[in-house]
Amino acid sequence: MDAHAKFWIEKDGKLVMSDFRVRLLRHIDETGSLSEAATRMGLSYRRAWGKVREIEANLGAKLIETSIGGHGGGGSRLTPEGRRMVERYERFRARAVRDLGAEFVRSFGGTDR
Amino acid sequence: MDAHAKFWIEKDGKLVMSDFRVRLLRHIDETGSLSEAATRMGLSYRRAWGKVREIEANLGAKLIETSIGGHGGGGSRLTPEGRRMVERYERFRARAVRDLGAEFVRSFGGTDR
Repeated sequence: MDAHAKFWIEKDGKLVMSDFRVRLLRHIDETGSLSEAATRMGLSYRRAWGKVREIEANLGAKLIETSIGGHGGGGSRLTPEGRRMVERYERFRARAVRDLGAEFVRSFGGTDR
Repeated sequence: MDAHAKFWIEKDGKLVMSDFRVRLLRHIDETGSLSEAATRMGLSYRRAWGKVREIEANLGAKLIETSIGGHGGGGSRLTPEGRRMVERYERFRARAVRDLGAEFVRSFGGTDR
């Protein structure tokens, strides 16, 4: 047997961060492009854009900044607040997963039953 | 902001214990009746019965024993293995929830942002 969990962060009862949302933000940061991040996530551009706006609205902070035109036709990147949120969530998740395994062993005794 | 999680236990990739499943088992134990437990969960008797059988099949252990007839027309109760599983899961879950709160504070600094 093994323990599993799905984690997320809410603000005022509204979903802010989840594995899915943070993966989207990570892809935007890595590719510098919302369009490319959407493709990597298997999302339409419109849906990815809407998701980012929803996260920002629920959090009350701007997470992505977009430059228009210029070299490469502009692009998107995380704001300092966006990067901080991603890093905090990833740290939180990694620790929570580690704890989960430890608590499973403590409670179920690490046996196969 | 606050952290949330959904927990579950799998065996060989199959779902064994979850909050929902353990609540069903708890109700069976408290009421001594699968029928009454089903009602409390808002499930049909058939669906509750199927859920218990599925848990037992996935776990490879008998969790409920049913007596037929006798005083009160028989009833259902947890086997010792069933009670052990419920208690372990509840202990696991309580600790995991406590850890979750602690990790949230550690990672997000207990701030509102």
